[in-house]
Amino acid sequence: RKSLTIGLIPADGIGKEVIPAARTAIEALGSDIPTPKFVDLIAGFETFTRTGVALPEETVEVLKNDCDCALFGSVSSPSRKVVGYSSPIVALRKILDLYANIRPVVSVSPSPDEPSKVDMIVVRENTECLYVKQEQQTFGEHGKEARATRLITERASTRIGKMAFELALARPRRHLTVIHKSNVLSVTDGLFRESVRAVQTKDPRFEAVTVAEQLVDSAVYRQYFPIYDVMVAPNLYGDILSDAAAALVGSLGVVPSVNAGDTFVMGEPVHGSAPDIFGQGIANPVASIRSAALMLRHLGYTEAAHRIDNAVDSVLREGQLLTPDLGGTAKTQEYHISLQKNS
Amino acid sequence: RKSLTIGLIPADGIGKEVIPAARTAIEALGSDIPTPKFVDLIAGFETFTRTGVALPEETVEVLKNDCDCALFGSVSSPSRKVVGYSSPIVALRKILDLYANIRPVVSVSPSPDEPSKVDMIVVRENTECLYVKQEQQTFGEHGKEARATRLITERASTRIGKMAFELALARPRRHLTVIHKSNVLSVTDGLFRESVRAVQTKDPRFEAVTVAEQLVDSAVYRQYFPIYDVMVAPNLYGDILSDAAAALVGSLGVVPSVNAGDTFVMGEPVHGSAPDIFGQGIANPVASIRSAALMLRHLGYTEAAHRIDNAVDSVLREGQLLTPDLGGTAKTQEYHISLQKNS
Ligand SMILES: CC(C)[C@H](C(=O)O)[C@@H](O)C(=O)O
Ligand SMILES: CC(C)[C@H](C(=O)O)[C@@H](O)C(=O)O
Repeated sequence: RKSLTIGLIPADGIGKEVIPAARTAIEALGSDIPTPKFVDLIAGFETFTRTGVALPEETVEVLKNDCDCALFGSVSSPSRKVVGYSSPIVALRKILDLYANIRPVVSVSPSPDEPSKVDMIVVRENTECLYVKQEQQTFGEHGKEARATRLITERASTRIGKMAFELALARPRRHLTVIHKSNVLSVTDGLFRESVRAVQTKDPRFEAVTVAEQLVDSAVYRQYFPIYDVMVAPNLYGDILSDAAAALVGSLGVVPSVNAGDTFVMGEPVHGSAPDIFGQGIANPVASIRSAALMLRHLGYTEAAHRIDNAVDSVLREGQLLTPDLGGTAKTQEYHISLQKNS
Repeated sequence: RKSLTIGLIPADGIGKEVIPAARTAIEALGSDIPTPKFVDLIAGFETFTRTGVALPEETVEVLKNDCDCALFGSVSSPSRKVVGYSSPIVALRKILDLYANIRPVVSVSPSPDEPSKVDMIVVRENTECLYVKQEQQTFGEHGKEARATRLITERASTRIGKMAFELALARPRRHLTVIHKSNVLSVTDGLFRESVRAVQTKDPRFEAVTVAEQLVDSAVYRQYFPIYDVMVAPNLYGDILSDAAAALVGSLGVVPSVNAGDTFVMGEPVHGSAPDIFGQGIANPVASIRSAALMLRHLGYTEAAHRIDNAVDSVLREGQLLTPDLGGTAKTQEYHISLQKNS
């Protein structure tokens, strides 16, 4: 690659404030990566209110045909059901077959030589479960009744299982916890559990990984006493688990993710569009900056990813540049200055 | 009532160790309540392995016909799918129409005059959502496919909404947060949200309650910075939220619940059967003892409930009788002695 074409989809709310910081972080890398080319793309609730479509076809086409990877910001949800609106991020994951949502939750240790207290990865299946959005409403004897389908397939559970085993294998502890609720959902979560476990028997390398299981309710509880290494979970449990884990590292504002498929990767901060603080310039850009690093790591630019993460680590360690979510008074803009200076 | 007939269903694991402590707590109340009569009943995975049925018909009949209320311990889950086994607690909730699962999560303040740092109630719908257990498996192009139905009805959402508004109204803050994920599940969670909100417009008393909404993923995150008063949630979210909340008060071993319907109430500790510590006599009986108090409060024996809670509060405040989950070395048995002494 001579250049790296990166689609930028800030979407709604603070997504617009933090994605530019991720861009600055990538630009500051210089020759560590091929020359980055940024393509600005639109999607989100604001796009929907303006154009009637939450995810314009052009955005999808450009991502598919012109981009090597992408960064997504965050989307606002309408506070009431709006006919025709459907989450663009859920759609993008499906259209681009970004079947794995990888969410590392890592705390910053007091010094670079000390290990992080919290250091885990939530590997979330990203295409099915209740996110297939097959819902209908009927009228029953006692009023309205609504039903949604929760889909779990062997194929999707197997491929997310593989991804999780690979990630666990590359870590010192080599420990994988399969999250489910098969005491209630014996068929769907039973299939998820079995499919993930079966992955281990099919690849001798994976024998080195220790596998455990945990019911999702106790897993969310046990996360507090950090014991997990890699966790693999169906879509909705993974969504909840990763938000819960964010509390352990002080703020949702520092937790990154990538939506990864076999041919495309899209970074995305775990936080939402945060309408309560949007427009004040105080959104924490760390999650987006780290999402850029994660995306680059996924593409094989390990050194570049490392540089970004190290820079963020020292900034957080120094405690000079903390946004309000971390107890400080720093502005998003100050990150730009710091990133440019340190490049 | 001259006497109070209480069904005791310890079920599996530490349920057998903690339910007796709840019984002792009730016995120690003396004349504060009608003479308690205890009926020992069986259910659970052990019952299933012995008899082939997880919830014997006799248990259900005795609860329905002879009992004023009940206490349930905890059930073990088989580690692999076992044909014919189905969770007896999920079945009991449905059969007895115990549609509300009320889970107060309250920390003990350093002194009786200080307010509790954490003081919230998770009100969990207890009969539908994915717990209807309508699941099937088929074979598709790419292997096995499994589907589960998530059911949300206006009727169940309305009655749990009412319960939540009543509870919120009786508290100083009068604040209710409706938990959902309607950015993905616009039909099912949309119906839940609307039905709960509609409750307020139908009863002028409820105007005094401030209503907010939160997506389940951010709700689990935000719980950590205790801001909630009463939360009302569909079944599965409520299950996860209450376990997550337990981490805030130090241990799942202190969080009680009642499964409540219009004509019956069943106390149940929020923790599970804890096979890792079963048999060691170190299970924390506080959740069960508080569940007994909650059950009595629900029946109108406010003074008796208060006495039990106060006794538990002072024991925890003193820090003398802490089981290992709370960092101590106390045994379950020591609670019996303490309860008997203080009666
Ligand atoms: C916005 C929403 C649809 C999304 C999800 O639930 O996947 C978000 O919470 C996330 O985690 O990326
Ligand atoms: C045992 C299990 C079926 C149950 C549930 O999910 O309701 C438990 O976790 C609970 O919270 O009472």
